[in-house]
Amino acid sequence: MSRRHRVVVIGGGFGGLHVVRGLRKAPVDITLVDRRNYHLFQPLLYQVATGGLSPANIAGPMRSILRRQQNVTVLLEELLDFDPTNKEIVTNEGRIEYDTLVVAAGVTHSYFGHDEWESIAPGLKTIDDATAIRGRILSAFEQAEAERDPELRKQHLTFVIVGAGPTGVELAGALAELSRHSLKHDFRNINPSDARIIVVDAAPGVLTTYPEELSSKACGFLKRLGVEVHTSAMVTDLQPGQVTLKKDDTTEVIKAATVLWAAGVQSTPLAAKLAKATGAQTDRAGRLHVEPNLSLSGHENIFVIGDMANCTGPDDKPLPGVAPVAIQQGDYVAKLIQRRLEGKNLPPFAYHNRGNMATVGRAAAIAEIGRFRFAGFVAWLLWLFVHLMQIVQFQNRLLVLIQWSWRYFTHSRPARLITVEAGRRQASHDAEV
Amino acid sequence: MSRRHRVVVIGGGFGGLHVVRGLRKAPVDITLVDRRNYHLFQPLLYQVATGGLSPANIAGPMRSILRRQQNVTVLLEELLDFDPTNKEIVTNEGRIEYDTLVVAAGVTHSYFGHDEWESIAPGLKTIDDATAIRGRILSAFEQAEAERDPELRKQHLTFVIVGAGPTGVELAGALAELSRHSLKHDFRNINPSDARIIVVDAAPGVLTTYPEELSSKACGFLKRLGVEVHTSAMVTDLQPGQVTLKKDDTTEVIKAATVLWAAGVQSTPLAAKLAKATGAQTDRAGRLHVEPNLSLSGHENIFVIGDMANCTGPDDKPLPGVAPVAIQQGDYVAKLIQRRLEGKNLPPFAYHNRGNMATVGRAAAIAEIGRFRFAGFVAWLLWLFVHLMQIVQFQNRLLVLIQWSWRYFTHSRPARLITVEAGRRQASHDAEV
Repeated sequence: MSRRHRVVVIGGGFGGLHVVRGLRKAPVDITLVDRRNYHLFQPLLYQVATGGLSPANIAGPMRSILRRQQNVTVLLEELLDFDPTNKEIVTNEGRIEYDTLVVAAGVTHSYFGHDEWESIAPGLKTIDDATAIRGRILSAFEQAEAERDPELRKQHLTFVIVGAGPTGVELAGALAELSRHSLKHDFRNINPSDARIIVVDAAPGVLTTYPEELSSKACGFLKRLGVEVHTSAMVTDLQPGQVTLKKDDTTEVIKAATVLWAAGVQSTPLAAKLAKATGAQTDRAGRLHVEPNLSLSGHENIFVIGDMANCTGPDDKPLPGVAPVAIQQGDYVAKLIQRRLEGKNLPPFAYHNRGNMATVGRAAAIAEIGRFRFAGFVAWLLWLFVHLMQIVQFQNRLLVLIQWSWRYFTHSRPARLITVEAGRRQASHDAEV
Repeated sequence: MSRRHRVVVIGGGFGGLHVVRGLRKAPVDITLVDRRNYHLFQPLLYQVATGGLSPANIAGPMRSILRRQQNVTVLLEELLDFDPTNKEIVTNEGRIEYDTLVVAAGVTHSYFGHDEWESIAPGLKTIDDATAIRGRILSAFEQAEAERDPELRKQHLTFVIVGAGPTGVELAGALAELSRHSLKHDFRNINPSDARIIVVDAAPGVLTTYPEELSSKACGFLKRLGVEVHTSAMVTDLQPGQVTLKKDDTTEVIKAATVLWAAGVQSTPLAAKLAKATGAQTDRAGRLHVEPNLSLSGHENIFVIGDMANCTGPDDKPLPGVAPVAIQQGDYVAKLIQRRLEGKNLPPFAYHNRGNMATVGRAAAIAEIGRFRFAGFVAWLLWLFVHLMQIVQFQNRLLVLIQWSWRYFTHSRPARLITVEAGRRQASHDAEV
């Protein structure tokens, strides 16, 4: 009996998981390699960062998700390099051979050349990022409560979010609700509602990938929550405890103990290694240019999907780094691999945009579905429904639904734990303030 | 108007929280000082360590719990020292004056003089301990899956729990269920049911504070789950990856990648500081001897309660370090403080033992309530009911109930996340193996 076709998938995010699931009935042996043991529902990560949900509500063990799929082996290993000549990858545990390789390793934060800003303004990509940010936010309120100097107290209660894309807007909205509602009665020396929440973006508006009409609605929702929105403003310097903004020709220094980064992403070092090994071209953000069938030029058996790929859309612009793109690409590649095994082919990948939505807060979201545009309560209900349906595991879905319903009526945020790791980061951060 | 009586409470565990709640209608100003921002329902901590519950299910933000109680200020500070002469405590943020001081700072692990064992065999007291242990346990299965050497694989799949008190027995039972049921279909190279789970105790049985009849039932439950029980066995040495046991005159070396410590507790360094400041006597475990009214000898206005206190029970033995003792002591001190403000007094503290229960696993627990003894399913239902009723916040109760029901039918353990902190500890641990 001949050996079965071996597929190695790097990364268990939306893209990688959909490749694996799409191959569940295929006569292949799949190896899924990830550094982390969980699949993360990233669109809700900001809710962990603001104490609304627990990590386990939005992250499920990869092995659990794939337990019934007998043709997949999950390996918790770290990818170190690629060896396309020998059709092997190199991990911290050894070498793994493949016939087809799918790389879906995602992206990391980009500080636009200022890597020293990372420790001052953490970004939000992993569960650990989320619990660390949660710790910073909650510690800021604690420190304000303990502080007697009114200026320093103000500084502890000032939060700057750099970036007014979906993550920045969601964080700002959730932070506003946390301070205005959830923490309302919790303190004795401060009024948490006094917290200043500032969103900064170099673009002229918030959520600028949406039509102007929806973008300005979202901006209105933010302002209704008391969030200050600074658009067309560049961050020119970050120091512990302060942010320097440049807007037109004026420079403003904002004293803020907590700065969160939601401004940009770039490829992980893996993308550069893969480019070097295969001769593939990368774009400015380090994403790999892919062929219309998502393979790398000259490497028919290596696919790159999800946020790591620069895949040209119908308007000649690269497709955005969002979950639906990764999911459809994963499904496509799974299908293409099966067709090839049958000696057939598939037409090029085409992204079907089923709609976009972003949420600002309670009963405030925007959505664009085909020709239809929604803003406010209806968009928010749509957002709730779509996100709840997408959460991978049933149990999580039920638990999230209950927690959201409870929160809708009580404004509570139960998962407000400051853990050691987060506390330590905050402590070292303060030492510098 | 005269100043209100100031009560400072150190520690927001069961004891401290009950003092605060008991004073909710009293004409006093309360300051609750804790290093952590959450109240922890410690009896269920082992379920977090074994992936059954999320941290936020059993820990609620202290401020949230006390938000409606206007006479309390919560301070997230670390206690450094006591100054009874000036009626002040010293924290990392400054000095706080009191009229009455209640110290309920709990205990930490005791390694019986072998502090170097702590990094090899972590104990279970805090949320961070629990998530770190969870990471170690799950990583051990991951490493077994990746390991090709059968001897090393066996070592990764061997778990030793030192201590057969309630925590040790609960951990062993939960670990057995995790490996026998929850992880059943998750791996391809190993069979998680092959995991050896070994409980070791120097005492001649498990749960020896219970009547012989119940203790041997509990031992039977453990064995039914495939747990090996080594009683009358002393740990004489711990090295990364191996445990040395002495039983009678024979010495046995067990190769085990994961060792968990549930063997003993001792007072935190705070107890020694308080003893020094007040001249109070301490016992071998560092607990402070208290007067019949729980105050320190010669210091009518300083109370010590909970695990930190050595309070003599009716049989002249110190009361055990369990939640009901701390709760009743907290209630008593709150009442005594109020009586004193009215110029009255209270009879000495008397502990009312309403019963004891310990669980081994699914449908297997033991309970002793007055003259009645239960073992098995009924005891387990009692255990479930009592623990569910005691969880402080309603939302947690509902969420825990749903998760337990779900798990009862599916054997699933959803919160199986390996986080960075835990991963790192595991990594450094392995480097030494």
